[in-house]
Amino acid sequence: MTAFVRNQWYVAAYGREVGRELLGRTVLGEPILLYRTEDGRTVAMSDRCVHRRFPLSQAPSRLTGDHVMCGYHGFTYGTDGVCVFVPGQQRIPRTARLKTYPVIEQDSFVWVWIGDHEPGDVVPPRAPWMDSPDYTVVSGMEPIDGDYGLLVDNLLDLSHETYLHGGYIGTPEVAQTPITTEVDDAAGIVHVSRHMDDAECPPFYAKSTGIETRITRWQDIEYHAPCLYLLHSRIAPVGAPGPGPDGSDPHAFHVEVVYGITPSTERTTYDFWAVARDFALGDEKVSEFLHTSNHTVVMQDVVALNALQKSLDTEKPGYQELSINIDTGGLAARRILARLAQAGADQPATVAR
Amino acid sequence: MTAFVRNQWYVAAYGREVGRELLGRTVLGEPILLYRTEDGRTVAMSDRCVHRRFPLSQAPSRLTGDHVMCGYHGFTYGTDGVCVFVPGQQRIPRTARLKTYPVIEQDSFVWVWIGDHEPGDVVPPRAPWMDSPDYTVVSGMEPIDGDYGLLVDNLLDLSHETYLHGGYIGTPEVAQTPITTEVDDAAGIVHVSRHMDDAECPPFYAKSTGIETRITRWQDIEYHAPCLYLLHSRIAPVGAPGPGPDGSDPHAFHVEVVYGITPSTERTTYDFWAVARDFALGDEKVSEFLHTSNHTVVMQDVVALNALQKSLDTEKPGYQELSINIDTGGLAARRILARLAQAGADQPATVAR
Amino acid sequence: MTAFVRNQWYVAAYGREVGRELLGRTVLGEPILLYRTEDGRTVAMSDRCVHRRFPLSQAPSRLTGDHVMCGYHGFTYGTDGVCVFVPGQQRIPRTARLKTYPVIEQDSFVWVWIGDHEPGDVVPPRAPWMDSPDYTVVSGMEPIDGDYGLLVDNLLDLSHETYLHGGYIGTPEVAQTPITTEVDDAAGIVHVSRHMDDAECPPFYAKSTGIETRITRWQDIEYHAPCLYLLHSRIAPVGAPGPGPDGSDPHAFHVEVVYGITPSTERTTYDFWAVARDFALGDEKVSEFLHTSNHTVVMQDVVALNALQKSLDTEKPGYQELSINIDTGGLAARRILARLAQAGADQPATVAR
Ligand code: FES
Ligand code: FES
Ligand code: FES
Repeated sequence: MTAFVRNQWYVAAYGREVGRELLGRTVLGEPILLYRTEDGRTVAMSDRCVHRRFPLSQAPSRLTGDHVMCGYHGFTYGTDGVCVFVPGQQRIPRTARLKTYPVIEQDSFVWVWIGDHEPGDVVPPRAPWMDSPDYTVVSGMEPIDGDYGLLVDNLLDLSHETYLHGGYIGTPEVAQTPITTEVDDAAGIVHVSRHMDDAECPPFYAKSTGIETRITRWQDIEYHAPCLYLLHSRIAPVGAPGPGPDGSDPHAFHVEVVYGITPSTERTTYDFWAVARDFALGDEKVSEFLHTSNHTVVMQDVVALNALQKSLDTEKPGYQELSINIDTGGLAARRILARLAQAGADQPATVAR
Repeated sequence: MTAFVRNQWYVAAYGREVGRELLGRTVLGEPILLYRTEDGRTVAMSDRCVHRRFPLSQAPSRLTGDHVMCGYHGFTYGTDGVCVFVPGQQRIPRTARLKTYPVIEQDSFVWVWIGDHEPGDVVPPRAPWMDSPDYTVVSGMEPIDGDYGLLVDNLLDLSHETYLHGGYIGTPEVAQTPITTEVDDAAGIVHVSRHMDDAECPPFYAKSTGIETRITRWQDIEYHAPCLYLLHSRIAPVGAPGPGPDGSDPHAFHVEVVYGITPSTERTTYDFWAVARDFALGDEKVSEFLHTSNHTVVMQDVVALNALQKSLDTEKPGYQELSINIDTGGLAARRILARLAQAGADQPATVAR
Repeated sequence: MTAFVRNQWYVAAYGREVGRELLGRTVLGEPILLYRTEDGRTVAMSDRCVHRRFPLSQAPSRLTGDHVMCGYHGFTYGTDGVCVFVPGQQRIPRTARLKTYPVIEQDSFVWVWIGDHEPGDVVPPRAPWMDSPDYTVVSGMEPIDGDYGLLVDNLLDLSHETYLHGGYIGTPEVAQTPITTEVDDAAGIVHVSRHMDDAECPPFYAKSTGIETRITRWQDIEYHAPCLYLLHSRIAPVGAPGPGPDGSDPHAFHVEVVYGITPSTERTTYDFWAVARDFALGDEKVSEFLHTSNHTVVMQDVVALNALQKSLDTEKPGYQELSINIDTGGLAARRILARLAQAGADQPATVAR
């Protein structure tokens, strides 16, 4: 099992999922309650009532104004987690308060800080395309019955597109083209690039862009350990001019594929996935096609990773993997995660908010 | 997990459930076979064949007269558990006998003694309303996927009626009115009383009694650890005369709510529930209404306790609860159960019958 | 749990199950991939890709010619288990090879050798009726959620036919007639015989043979530990002549009941079952009747053994069984299995193929 990295920001939900219904999510094994106040602020607190540990996200628990009322015996909490009502008596015990979690809503995601100390000036990494007028986005979330490390492995090596996702996003060139990997250990970022100069155009891009010829296809991965994965995808007909010196690139189509990789329990993971495009903006048909296609691709991963986890569960201790060049990025990610997990564990615990 | 209390009587079934079909129940982790002899006597014995441990309650095991024949290879047992037939040979091994359990059928329940010694003159506590011409009873049983201690907690603190059972039996006054608790440690009985002088009449009582005004509502709990829970409920229109000095109380409606709380395995429980009333005797419509309503209330508890148990299963060791005044009865019950469990474990094991 | 016996042949499949679709089976806890080459040879190799342990029997893994291509990242293996392709590079790591298993296809079964050394000249035991023009066979396979030892117990003592399979193959005489048991410890074979001179004809035989009178019924069990169970069943009308001095037996009907008992995991088992007859050859109606009847009988065993395993799972350590004469064969089988398991474990591990 891949160790959890504490003292980090994680995607707990899309902003659109958090509203006036109580939402329960488990992040790094911590049960978290999410809801939106009447004036639109997102709050995150422990999803376990201090009284008898009833889950606050479980009906008939409910909101009364901005307060959360436990559905078992009515303990009621404010947005700061402090208990404001208990049944049968006036005095409220001083210790009756829920742990709250720092929250930042950014780029359409609700990020929560899982840590032993406050985030200070540490902020989540950015995925600005998620919430930009220049892009149209389709997105979703699928739970995986597997260690989050399996999803990191999966996404850091796109040669699997050729096999697991053939007919959708994979073509032979993806597996054939060598990659270059760069690791920024200090920042905890792994870059994996694969530039195909003359490749088949897979249906995912052919149908959405209308390109009918072969393409140049660039895949530039930028993984911000532990939680955010960005794939900058550039597609252009073979022979089209490249990006200009100023960075402008009017002859190409750009897709930003974004994944929030959020460990839930030791063997379950939230797979937040999104596809942002800079073409066919607002075209519902293209959006529907890309949503359906990418959901299919995500489900192929989910089915494969669930099966892989089940297999690994029956392996004898000390089983072997065999890594090759394509795994360079994934192995770098594992090293960074191991280091961050160690660093997180080393943090002297300070008073939790 | 709440420790099991041995050397006690437990409700294993309603009398009506025990007949000429073999019935298997697991009480305190012991698999027990129940059936009724041709002359109407209830017998309880181990539900595991001595030969290869096949469950005797599992088809094609069956009764032949008053004998139980194992469905696997035909070992056959008398009502005293002694084996009377084995296949392929005349000689029956001397040790071929099943453990039998002392049984008492009382107040519509089948009580079995789970212990290391005989009950002697210890008898089960009484719930005479269950089987009295002066009461009409509706009842049922629901299994809970949870520690029996969760159900004890639940029933000893009725302030949860206001939240978990709002719209059925809960009104604001239940949670608001302070309780008085009395503990008879020697007898292992906890009393919790809540007398509401002027309360809303919840649908459960309004529809069954016909009262349309506000009510005085008395809840007098009498918990006989470990297995029997009685709630003496008195409802009368506000202003109606109270009970007379002789104990008669003709101006009120009385409901006796009875629970048999039977630990099955370490995290499953049988929840035997009954509602006995001294009004609208024999009125089928009222019976149907009370059966449906109380079954709904029980299922609200079952759903909540199953969810609570699942939550507790993922808690880190040493998690905290926070108790307040309403928990006084429940905490007293826990103390008595812990003491009885200790006492039961201390009993020198004598030859089991 | 019954110990696994290594360095033995096991039935992994029927030959008809192995074709150009990838088939995964788990034998003695080892995940095995089975398929047939274009020229009809059966191959068996590890069902876990050396790269990231993806199951090769899981779609979209597939055959390309006689090569197996992993559905995750495309590692491709020859029939000798040697990797012949990896994505993104020319060089194939020397250690990229799957363990292969010796395979023998014999008597309609696919036998695999599970061992730490090569089989040498050890061959699987024979069941020639499975694949002979003189017999017509019906067969199938059912998985059991139980220790394979439970199935060995079950089949070595047929007195259970009277109880568990009454109305199909059981009659009172089976349980009443004493058995004779012979054990060939060196060869690892247990013989259990029960000859009934004047017995009721159960529907299984009455409807298939047309006999309407009482019968002589011989049951001669020959169990080749660990995997092959043969029941030589002879049925003839009472009074018909016995076998001649030359072994010919024209006045009787012969059924060869064959079981492959293959441990899958510690508590799951493959139950390969077959019924071969030397009468009504090719009669579809009789085949259909015997298939349906024997499948029903097998399912009675499956239901009983699954229930038994569940019961045993909740037994306290040190629970007792009580054995009688009918268990002589089963106990001998257990002793042989324990000795073989010990011997298998004692084998010095040599280089596995
Ligand atoms: S568990 Fe929440 S109020 Fe009791
Ligand atoms: S297990 Fe009951 S007779 Fe064999
Ligand atoms: S797991 Fe099979 S190729 Fe990667």
